[in-house]
Amino acid sequence: MKITKLSNSISLKRQLEGGNEEQLKTVRQVLQDVRENGDMAVRKYSEMWDGISLDDFLVTQEEIDEAVANFDEQLKQDLQEAADNIRFYHEAQKREGYKLSLPDGSWLAQRIIPLDAVGLYVPGGSAAYPSSVLMNVIPAQVAGVERIVITSPAGKDGKLPAAVLVAASILGITEIYKVGGAQAIAALAYGTETIAPVDKITGPGNIFVALAKREVFGEVAIDMIAGPSEIAVLADDTAFADEVAADLLSQAEHDALACAVLVTTSERFAKEVADQVEQQLRELPREAIARKAIENFGQIYIADTMEQAIEAINSLAPEHLEVVTANAEEDSLKIRHAGAIFIGRYSSEPVGDYFAGTNHVLPTNSTARFASGLNVDDFIKRSNIVYYSEKTWEENAPKIARLARMEGLEGHARAVESRGWTKGDE
Amino acid sequence: MKITKLSNSISLKRQLEGGNEEQLKTVRQVLQDVRENGDMAVRKYSEMWDGISLDDFLVTQEEIDEAVANFDEQLKQDLQEAADNIRFYHEAQKREGYKLSLPDGSWLAQRIIPLDAVGLYVPGGSAAYPSSVLMNVIPAQVAGVERIVITSPAGKDGKLPAAVLVAASILGITEIYKVGGAQAIAALAYGTETIAPVDKITGPGNIFVALAKREVFGEVAIDMIAGPSEIAVLADDTAFADEVAADLLSQAEHDALACAVLVTTSERFAKEVADQVEQQLRELPREAIARKAIENFGQIYIADTMEQAIEAINSLAPEHLEVVTANAEEDSLKIRHAGAIFIGRYSSEPVGDYFAGTNHVLPTNSTARFASGLNVDDFIKRSNIVYYSEKTWEENAPKIARLARMEGLEGHARAVESRGWTKGDE
Repeated sequence: MKITKLSNSISLKRQLEGGNEEQLKTVRQVLQDVRENGDMAVRKYSEMWDGISLDDFLVTQEEIDEAVANFDEQLKQDLQEAADNIRFYHEAQKREGYKLSLPDGSWLAQRIIPLDAVGLYVPGGSAAYPSSVLMNVIPAQVAGVERIVITSPAGKDGKLPAAVLVAASILGITEIYKVGGAQAIAALAYGTETIAPVDKITGPGNIFVALAKREVFGEVAIDMIAGPSEIAVLADDTAFADEVAADLLSQAEHDALACAVLVTTSERFAKEVADQVEQQLRELPREAIARKAIENFGQIYIADTMEQAIEAINSLAPEHLEVVTANAEEDSLKIRHAGAIFIGRYSSEPVGDYFAGTNHVLPTNSTARFASGLNVDDFIKRSNIVYYSEKTWEENAPKIARLARMEGLEGHARAVESRGWTKGDE
Repeated sequence: MKITKLSNSISLKRQLEGGNEEQLKTVRQVLQDVRENGDMAVRKYSEMWDGISLDDFLVTQEEIDEAVANFDEQLKQDLQEAADNIRFYHEAQKREGYKLSLPDGSWLAQRIIPLDAVGLYVPGGSAAYPSSVLMNVIPAQVAGVERIVITSPAGKDGKLPAAVLVAASILGITEIYKVGGAQAIAALAYGTETIAPVDKITGPGNIFVALAKREVFGEVAIDMIAGPSEIAVLADDTAFADEVAADLLSQAEHDALACAVLVTTSERFAKEVADQVEQQLRELPREAIARKAIENFGQIYIADTMEQAIEAINSLAPEHLEVVTANAEEDSLKIRHAGAIFIGRYSSEPVGDYFAGTNHVLPTNSTARFASGLNVDDFIKRSNIVYYSEKTWEENAPKIARLARMEGLEGHARAVESRGWTKGDE
């Protein structure tokens, strides 16, 4: 890993691949086709791209039961415990609206209402990501969303990975479709004969899925388009180099575009971590991917002071931050921009990816400056409510009419003035 | 207004003008130019499009003081009272993070942190919109945003409208730039020599502003792209036709693309409102605009039952809804999708545009299904915090490692396992 003396503010912003014209054209065609031709189009593209031919997309209860029955008991327990932890953390985010009384019997209120229906896209491919099912579904359930749909491409055997079905089953989700790619996003956004449309689509996917989500945005809500994973570590010489190196690599193994940064006040520690990274890299199964990430987006910065180091972290606004310093909790309070913060030696970042209870869907590419991880509020909306009594109206109508006329909106003024005292008493 | 018998679900979704290729090309060029050449480029485009040549964009304290000194006292008081009401309503949205204790000294937390800096775009043109200043700035102030910037195109006289400066002054905002159009959005997103960049841009604007906001989205946060105004009224025969007609016209006068819909259980009332709309239209200063809106997007639906009427409103998901029925509050509780709801005869919609305290920046074009009006949460972000003690780590590390290996992420498993018991005790 490159070691640099920290001077100016640093950045981990990367110019990310936004998909090319050709891909966008394909996605738009799929969206239109599914919008017009429904299931028939979904079937066509599933055959064309996933190589599977299905009469029925809906996973049957038998398939779910079979997956659950044959699944490793220990892993099932681990998933259940992770789900319980995630629910515990997110329950604290749930909130009620409010009602504010005004004089003369008037009141204002904010009502909080869960979305009617949301869809979660779970990517297919070589690995299964049950943790993604937990992290996306549980906040929606806590919010009170009634209909939660999962869609994911089936493998060549026409089945979904058992781990995904088990995770869904633990959460009580039964509406699961074997559809992937842009056609899945189209089906969720527009609906087909068998798949009713949803109000919001979340979950990661390949470039076609990401482009499709961007295209249907506005028609439905989407979560953020997730970029490659990032980890930053803030450490002094009280940290252990092998542990920090292992944590840096845990994110580097995700993606050749992943980003791993250490900011430390100790030159000795910087060198130890660089050595450890190289040593551990050689024994990592996903060495090729992790090595590319470390070479391209791995950096160790040496800061003169902890204050300078903290300022550098704030300029990064990383997705994940570990604070492994002598005063870790205190230092963490000075961090203004980070998706998630892991405090102290034993809070290794993967603890949050799987188990602690915090959400692992987090803002990347410096968007932690203004964005948050997935949370319960992502699955509700708010309505503003106004109730004005006659007396409140009478007192305030002249003011409102003046303000409207100042903006040149006579129709607004007349509307407010249209309530006649006398007429009401006729 | 057209009167139709309500049958199927109804929609007010309109295919809205998204800007053409030519406009997008222009906007992209402006963005790049400002990104590269800063103030010089801002000056160039202000001269080119707004016809004003300014050495200094920043409004001086003298200009603000002058505007305040010469402003109508009554209107100043009205604006101040509106500001107080808006602050009162939004203060209730402010919230703290939370901390959850786990066994063995571990804990999880959510920290809520205001954005560092936000920019509000205020459109120029013939009218001034001080209400827009109040509605955008106050939620950001309540959230705790430290730096709030306003930018707006100057008139031919090189000045901003007094009403905008007075509204800003009431709120204590002093960083105000005389810059409009796409160049203003570029300056806010990328920064120039005199304008430091912000983290989020809100506020309405013309098609160039809207396109520019879309383009910088991701670099900074933006609010929703607002569509033309919409009003739906749910009424039975206890409502007054002249009042409902006036309220429908109050939104129709905004924009030829505005939408005004009445759903009623009374055929008599439907006809009376249609008559009243025509009568009032003839006397409206903005008749031409309002008439186009009513002709194109005005509709009266007659429902058989109140339940059917309410379901129709839910399928509309309107920006503004008035409920003017015998049991208005009770009926309003059945509305799942509406940006703002005005209950009863005296809660005319413009009450909320200017004065009641609720926000007037609301989701349009049926996005109230999944989106909310501007609120305090739009100006904060959340960080997830994990602190694991040694004991909690020791107990859970094997589970986390198993979950990671199930997903094929060996590096994650090793990171969690890398904390050595013995090493810690060396």
